[in-house]
Amino acid sequence: MSIYEERVRRIRRVMTEKGVNAIVIAGVENYYYITGDVRRQARMVFPAEGEPTLIVFFTEEELVRKNTWIKDVRPWRNVSELMGHFFSAMKEKDLTDKTVGFDVHSTPGFEVYRFRKLNPKINLVETDEVLMELRMYKSGEEIERMREAAKIAEKGMKAAIETVAPGISENEVAAEAEYAMRKAGAERWGTIPFVNSGYRSLYLHGFVSHKIIEKGDPVLIDVHPVCDMYAADMARTVVCGQPSQEQKKAASTYVQAQKQTREALRPGWKVGDVTQFMKGAMEKLPYSEFNVPAYIHGVGLEFEEWPHPSHYPQHNSIVLKPSMTVSIGHATLPVPGIGGFRVEDTVLITEEGCESLTTYERELI
Amino acid sequence: MSIYEERVRRIRRVMTEKGVNAIVIAGVENYYYITGDVRRQARMVFPAEGEPTLIVFFTEEELVRKNTWIKDVRPWRNVSELMGHFFSAMKEKDLTDKTVGFDVHSTPGFEVYRFRKLNPKINLVETDEVLMELRMYKSGEEIERMREAAKIAEKGMKAAIETVAPGISENEVAAEAEYAMRKAGAERWGTIPFVNSGYRSLYLHGFVSHKIIEKGDPVLIDVHPVCDMYAADMARTVVCGQPSQEQKKAASTYVQAQKQTREALRPGWKVGDVTQFMKGAMEKLPYSEFNVPAYIHGVGLEFEEWPHPSHYPQHNSIVLKPSMTVSIGHATLPVPGIGGFRVEDTVLITEEGCESLTTYERELI
Repeated sequence: MSIYEERVRRIRRVMTEKGVNAIVIAGVENYYYITGDVRRQARMVFPAEGEPTLIVFFTEEELVRKNTWIKDVRPWRNVSELMGHFFSAMKEKDLTDKTVGFDVHSTPGFEVYRFRKLNPKINLVETDEVLMELRMYKSGEEIERMREAAKIAEKGMKAAIETVAPGISENEVAAEAEYAMRKAGAERWGTIPFVNSGYRSLYLHGFVSHKIIEKGDPVLIDVHPVCDMYAADMARTVVCGQPSQEQKKAASTYVQAQKQTREALRPGWKVGDVTQFMKGAMEKLPYSEFNVPAYIHGVGLEFEEWPHPSHYPQHNSIVLKPSMTVSIGHATLPVPGIGGFRVEDTVLITEEGCESLTTYERELI
Repeated sequence: MSIYEERVRRIRRVMTEKGVNAIVIAGVENYYYITGDVRRQARMVFPAEGEPTLIVFFTEEELVRKNTWIKDVRPWRNVSELMGHFFSAMKEKDLTDKTVGFDVHSTPGFEVYRFRKLNPKINLVETDEVLMELRMYKSGEEIERMREAAKIAEKGMKAAIETVAPGISENEVAAEAEYAMRKAGAERWGTIPFVNSGYRSLYLHGFVSHKIIEKGDPVLIDVHPVCDMYAADMARTVVCGQPSQEQKKAASTYVQAQKQTREALRPGWKVGDVTQFMKGAMEKLPYSEFNVPAYIHGVGLEFEEWPHPSHYPQHNSIVLKPSMTVSIGHATLPVPGIGGFRVEDTVLITEEGCESLTTYERELI
């Protein structure tokens, strides 16, 4: 049985358990997970029973038939044909007033808005409610790909850190990070790199700007390469030039708390235990009053995926098990007047504890 | 009166005309348009009357107060505080069962899903219904920034095209395009570059892959840099090595039809007229049977914005007026067995016709 047949069998079991009559696949990641095919604009109506319908751009039909196990492939040439195919499939499968999942996590907002508006009678749930029950646990091959992505992240981080110097812009640092990651095989970004220096290191997820890095600036760098569909997520903070005593203390607080958490973590912990442990570790260290406890999220086909307690508080009760891959250190320690610090690694939960896939030097450099 | 006061006055007029009681701002672009401040995670409840409420990460509060005209700024340190502020603001402003806009075009799907779910009684509309009435028309300064972005796009295109050679991967071409654009000042991507070669040139918007470019492959390159918040959108197609006669013909069909459309376009045309004209121009040329008529969308703060007839068929009736900026050539001519071809430019509608901001060589090279 191919891995896709096995996945389909398990997906259908989860659908039955959760009372989901169908899932609509619009995101690249879930489409790939079900078919093994990489395609950006495929749309699939996947019922709990019976044949799924795949709707693709007409020039992609032949390749889709060759690359996937899907039999009912419907080609479109203009948006009204695309919509027509979709509504026919929903009607044929008797789904218009049923419980149907949509890829809300990996599609743009307007697709969700339109889907909700055009399907007013369905009970809309998230496709991830079904698929993440499987995707959270990674196979050996998936883990190998994540190791590859982790290596790429480290190359990007090295290039970025080596570029940091007084007079260099955040943008130039991002340029070197992206270039090094592309050359190492990154095919896209979970999200573009963040390079936040000086006062911008205090921002929450702050893109990249034209700001010039100055001596004494902390520089928070966060990279999220995707290679062969799998992501890594890694962050480091450096100081341009000599760090102050206060910067050393704040950086050390984050580094120590993150390290203690990685070392303590055991399968069987709940997601919320990671946050509680790291919060507790920080509270024994300087500047913990600025602590923002949101330290963990899943990593896999997406650079942020289930479990994701910052987006879904109920994920705090998910139990961490071997073969799950999560990021440890997602949050930041923003100390006003001193800087924001983050050290984040993608780790694999093992039988004994966890293994960090990203291992780049963590101490303030 | 500052440009932001003037914008707010006009936004409120549109809100009153359209019966929108408030808009919720979650996207970077609309937040910037209203405040002049660049910030990724700001959330604003902006009522038709009375003070707007701005909800920001606690370390950003001071800067937000300094950089913007907003008086009611509420800081948060964890997600439940953020949500608390949001629901308080909605309640105080008596919006929980009113007509409220949300930034569905520039936010990720799960934010739209959650907003809809947590606000079941509001009549949800798109914030763009209000803001794009203004944003579609660009000021002199906005146009200058788009010229800057257009120059950056051209530098990226030049670097990409110079990299195309047998044995080079799509990924390496994208690496050079991104690097050249970053170095020229691009601070992020409307969406990452597309580099689609050979059979992948037939795909609809197909990312970048590890595929190796071979002699005779058409290579479709599409770049979307953002600089100082404004985007450009440009695509070119080249053939690696000597193009075949068929490739020359197909490329020429697209180049000629796009050129004729740019030359014919006059203010007063409707958006749908552009598509009809370009479709008609193509129909006199070879391979027009593979024509996919979707040739125009707005460009500005977003690389794809209003008017956007492929997403909103009703936009076909929007009248093109001077100071609007659109892309001409969005679609593709995918000729099975021969290749997909696209030539796309960001143009400014003028009093006389249109001026192409991106002018890079369009003929098959």
